[in-house]
Amino acid sequence: MIEFNGVLGHEFVGEVVNDPAGELTGKRVVGEINIPCYNCSRCHNNQYKHCKNIKAIGMRGKDGALAEYLTLPVENLHIVPDTVTDEEAVFTEPIAAAVEIAEQYHLKPSEKIMVIGDGKLGLIIARTLWALGFDVEMIGRHQEKLDTLKPLNIKTYLEKLYPEKEPDIPVVIEATGSTSGLKAAIELVAPEGKIIYKTTTAKNHDLNLAGLAINEIKLLGSRCGPFKPALNLLERNELHLDRLITGEYKLEDSLDALKAAREKSSLKILIRP
Amino acid sequence: MIEFNGVLGHEFVGEVVNDPAGELTGKRVVGEINIPCYNCSRCHNNQYKHCKNIKAIGMRGKDGALAEYLTLPVENLHIVPDTVTDEEAVFTEPIAAAVEIAEQYHLKPSEKIMVIGDGKLGLIIARTLWALGFDVEMIGRHQEKLDTLKPLNIKTYLEKLYPEKEPDIPVVIEATGSTSGLKAAIELVAPEGKIIYKTTTAKNHDLNLAGLAINEIKLLGSRCGPFKPALNLLERNELHLDRLITGEYKLEDSLDALKAAREKSSLKILIRP
Repeated sequence: MIEFNGVLGHEFVGEVVNDPAGELTGKRVVGEINIPCYNCSRCHNNQYKHCKNIKAIGMRGKDGALAEYLTLPVENLHIVPDTVTDEEAVFTEPIAAAVEIAEQYHLKPSEKIMVIGDGKLGLIIARTLWALGFDVEMIGRHQEKLDTLKPLNIKTYLEKLYPEKEPDIPVVIEATGSTSGLKAAIELVAPEGKIIYKTTTAKNHDLNLAGLAINEIKLLGSRCGPFKPALNLLERNELHLDRLITGEYKLEDSLDALKAAREKSSLKILIRP
Repeated sequence: MIEFNGVLGHEFVGEVVNDPAGELTGKRVVGEINIPCYNCSRCHNNQYKHCKNIKAIGMRGKDGALAEYLTLPVENLHIVPDTVTDEEAVFTEPIAAAVEIAEQYHLKPSEKIMVIGDGKLGLIIARTLWALGFDVEMIGRHQEKLDTLKPLNIKTYLEKLYPEKEPDIPVVIEATGSTSGLKAAIELVAPEGKIIYKTTTAKNHDLNLAGLAINEIKLLGSRCGPFKPALNLLERNELHLDRLITGEYKLEDSLDALKAAREKSSLKILIRP
C-alpha cells in the first residue's frame, strides 16, 4: 500500500478552465487517473499504467478531485458527449475498469459470466458486460443492491440462497473487494475456466490454492481500463446508473460524504464543488 | 485432498502382459494416470482430466504402479520407442505435465521464462521447456539440484543470490510445491505477465494478492499433460534425465524407497519389481 497525503478523489467530471493549446478550454471532460512518466522501460513497452514512476490522482503523487480545481495532462482528458449527464459521467472511470475485462481477455457471448460482489464496482461490471452483450448474472449479499440491476433484467442471487452444487461457470468475476471472494470464485468456476480478479484489499488471504492447479483455473488480474469505449457505452444510455447514487453532498461537507460512503448501504456518493 | 487407500505409484514403465484386443501384448508402455468415466458433462465437453468421476492410478479409486502388475484401460497406454530406456521412460508423466504448459498457453520464444523451485517437477519443467526451444532460467535453493541442469547450459540462481530489483520477467513458473513460491513469483513477474501455477500443496497460503489485480498478472493453473509429445521429446534424448535419479530399490524394499524419497537431497527414486 502506498501512503498518500493529499486531496482525495479520482472519479470526476469537470469543465476545462485552461488548456494551454486552447482546444479543450470550456469543454466538459472526464480524466484518466494515471499519469505515467513516458520515460521508463515499461512506458517504452507501452505499459503506461504500469509505469515505474506512475502518479495517480487522489492516490499517488498527485492531488485529486475533491476540490474546486485540479490539474491533469491534456492527454488524460476525454470530452463528455452532450447527451451524457454529469451524474452519469462520474461513472466513466469504473465503467472503463469494467470494459478492461473485455479488453484484456476473450469473453464469449455464449459463456455464462458470474459477477460476485454487489459493491459499486461489481454492480458496474455487471451492467457494463451486460451492455456489451454478454450473458451476465450476479451473486451478492444485499438484496437492495442487487435490485439496482432489475431494470436490466440481470439475474441475481443472494449468496446464501445460491444453489452451489458443481456450478461449473466458465467465467467468474471476483469484485467483492474482500478476501472471502476468491474462495467463492474458485468454488464456482469450471475447470479450465477464468476468474477475473478485481479485488485489491490490503488484507492477506488465508486460502488453499491447490484447486487452481488441479482444475487448471486461470486467475486473471484486471485494473484500470480505456475511457473511450466507456464513454461510448454511456452515450447509449442503457446502464441505469441513477440507481447507484445514494447521496449527494457539497464540497464543504466532504467529511460527511466520506462518512456516508463508508456505510454498508452506500454505493456512489456525489460531491459538488 | 482426497483420501486414498491402495497401492501407490503413478510414474511407471512396464510390459503389457495381456491386451484383450492383442495389439499391445508384449509391448513396452507408459500409461496416462487419469481414468475418466466418459459419461459426465465434463467428459462430454472433452474435459476428460476434469471428469467428475475421475479415477487416477495410485491416487484416487485405482491401484497404482508399486506392484508387479497393474491394470489400465488400453486408451491410457503409449508404446515407448525402442531408443528410450526404462530409466528415461519413467519420466514421461512429469515431462507431459511440463509440456502441458506450452499446450495450454502461448509461450513466446523471445520471452524469458523463469522456473522457481528445484524439486523434481521444476527441474523437469526447465529441461522440457528448454528442449522445446524456450529461453529458460531457474531459481532454486539447492546448488546440487540446480547443477543437474549444467549439461543443458540452463542459467540457474540460488534464491538467496538472485538480484531482486524489479526483475520484470514475462513468464514465471511456480513449481516449488510450497506456499512460499507464489509470493516469490508475484515479486518476479512483470506487469501483465504470466505465472504458471503447478503447486498443489494442501497447506493454506497467507498472502496478499492485491498485486495480481494492480499489476494485471495472469495466474494460470496447470496440471497433467499429453504423453505423445513427451515421448517425442524423450526420443530426441536431450533432457539429461539420468542426473535426476538419486536412488534405486527393489519392490520389496519400497518402504525404504519412500523414506529415501522424503529426504531433502532426493530427486527421483526408482523401484524395480
